[in-house]
Amino acid sequence: MELELVRWLTENLPAHPLLRIGIGDDAAVLRWPTDGDLVVTTDGVTDEVDFILSETDPQLVGHKALGVNLSDLAAMAAEPVAAVVSLVLPRKGCGGRDAKELAIELYRGMLQLAEQFNVAIAGGDTNSWDGPLAISITAFGQVTQRGPLMRSGAKPGDLLLVTGALGGSILGRHLRVEPRVREALLLNERYELSAGMDISDGLALDASRLAAASGCGVALRLDQIPISADAVRLAACDRATPLEHALGDGEDFELLLTASPEVAEQIIREQPLGVPVTIIGECVDQRGLWKYGDQRQLLPLDASGYRH
Amino acid sequence: MELELVRWLTENLPAHPLLRIGIGDDAAVLRWPTDGDLVVTTDGVTDEVDFILSETDPQLVGHKALGVNLSDLAAMAAEPVAAVVSLVLPRKGCGGRDAKELAIELYRGMLQLAEQFNVAIAGGDTNSWDGPLAISITAFGQVTQRGPLMRSGAKPGDLLLVTGALGGSILGRHLRVEPRVREALLLNERYELSAGMDISDGLALDASRLAAASGCGVALRLDQIPISADAVRLAACDRATPLEHALGDGEDFELLLTASPEVAEQIIREQPLGVPVTIIGECVDQRGLWKYGDQRQLLPLDASGYRH
Repeated sequence: MELELVRWLTENLPAHPLLRIGIGDDAAVLRWPTDGDLVVTTDGVTDEVDFILSETDPQLVGHKALGVNLSDLAAMAAEPVAAVVSLVLPRKGCGGRDAKELAIELYRGMLQLAEQFNVAIAGGDTNSWDGPLAISITAFGQVTQRGPLMRSGAKPGDLLLVTGALGGSILGRHLRVEPRVREALLLNERYELSAGMDISDGLALDASRLAAASGCGVALRLDQIPISADAVRLAACDRATPLEHALGDGEDFELLLTASPEVAEQIIREQPLGVPVTIIGECVDQRGLWKYGDQRQLLPLDASGYRH
Repeated sequence: MELELVRWLTENLPAHPLLRIGIGDDAAVLRWPTDGDLVVTTDGVTDEVDFILSETDPQLVGHKALGVNLSDLAAMAAEPVAAVVSLVLPRKGCGGRDAKELAIELYRGMLQLAEQFNVAIAGGDTNSWDGPLAISITAFGQVTQRGPLMRSGAKPGDLLLVTGALGGSILGRHLRVEPRVREALLLNERYELSAGMDISDGLALDASRLAAASGCGVALRLDQIPISADAVRLAACDRATPLEHALGDGEDFELLLTASPEVAEQIIREQPLGVPVTIIGECVDQRGLWKYGDQRQLLPLDASGYRH
């Protein structure tokens, strides 16, 4: 099985200018540009947790597996370069596809996204077993001249910004991940951001993490949080409000950023992205996660987020 | 669970001079030396296939998971630099350990090996599910001045060399992987090798792969193959001979190398490693895998190797 898959990959993986040795040897070799620091992220997705294989087009599963990794590179404002793929396949395949066919569909989904972001699929490892599907991808990127965008640079007084609209990704966006790579690179190049991350576990939890990493607190302006249509649709079917979905749902894969008020307001004025950027709060001295009361006093906000 | 594990990792992962940003942000950042090509390998190991978790010290499992990746770097004559770890844990743990305790034991096993080879554990991802344990590691290395050692450089007339002794790794060596990193670096620096790989799927199969990648054949001198004591012990319990174990068993993680006769004989004379190096055959024009008959004629040899 692995032999046939390697043959398919050899024929279908496109060449890439930085890939010196790809599939077929014991390891891949990438030409790494002079003085380019290496950004590395690894993220795994598994059946019944991150997707339901029996109900999902495996190309979408492959897309998600790579997409969440590219989102992590975006979170560091790193330019994606390459990825390696480790598959553990159910021996019997799924949905009428044998294990090899399943692997090829997964790869097709990855390759489409890889092409879109000029990412070399540099290598992989494929195993099969009696367990369910598990995919682990490691992605590499380069930092730009500004250096990596970290979670830890926010200061009290900085404003909190978010791209896009939040909540309800379970209705489909959690699979169709659109990693905010170009958005992160553009913002980080053009404006002086102080901190950033991607929202994968829900705005409330991730905002509290950014605050903790920066040694400050974050106060959210609940009336200004952009709520996705999916969050509204979902709220019509359950007991949570659209805002609760926007705060707590996971897998938005939007960018959460901080910048000084001057820079943040400039970004809002210029709206340089295809997706809207919104100011949703500010960093404060008091550690923790906060919302504003009627008199603009700080009230504690629950940081429970999405549990995968 | 992941939060507690991240805390443990933050306290227990040693600093590394090349690691600028480790555990805790969206991705790791490694300082990459000027003009150093990046060698990348990814290899996964899974319960019931590569080890039996319920019967194995999880530190050994962690050791193996990293060891097989370092062995792939050794196969390229690359110097290991860093690794990232993706764990998918059985939600309920195993053998009286909960999932977090299991993860820590796995990491302890990896960290010991990582320290031995000066490898930075740069980051990781941890998930849990109802399935069995799966570990995927991606390891990075640097090529040395000689460049990477590939499978494809052997020429007819080159001699075939192997480190150590082969067969029977299932008796324990398959877990206690000793990646031949130092051996590969020393040999590749001091001698002009033409090709190399590590033996993971059995000598016969892997030798045929090296031959195929090099566009030639390989003829093995069956009476000169170093047979491990484990292969002898195993042969006493089953129907295979010690030689058959040495040819077909997997997971030796020894080096299979080729060099011109002059270079090969110099290596044999000088025996520069702590483990023996042995000439076990030669590269020939006729593609395929061969053994010698009584009149030194080439006879086909079955390339079936170990199936994980």
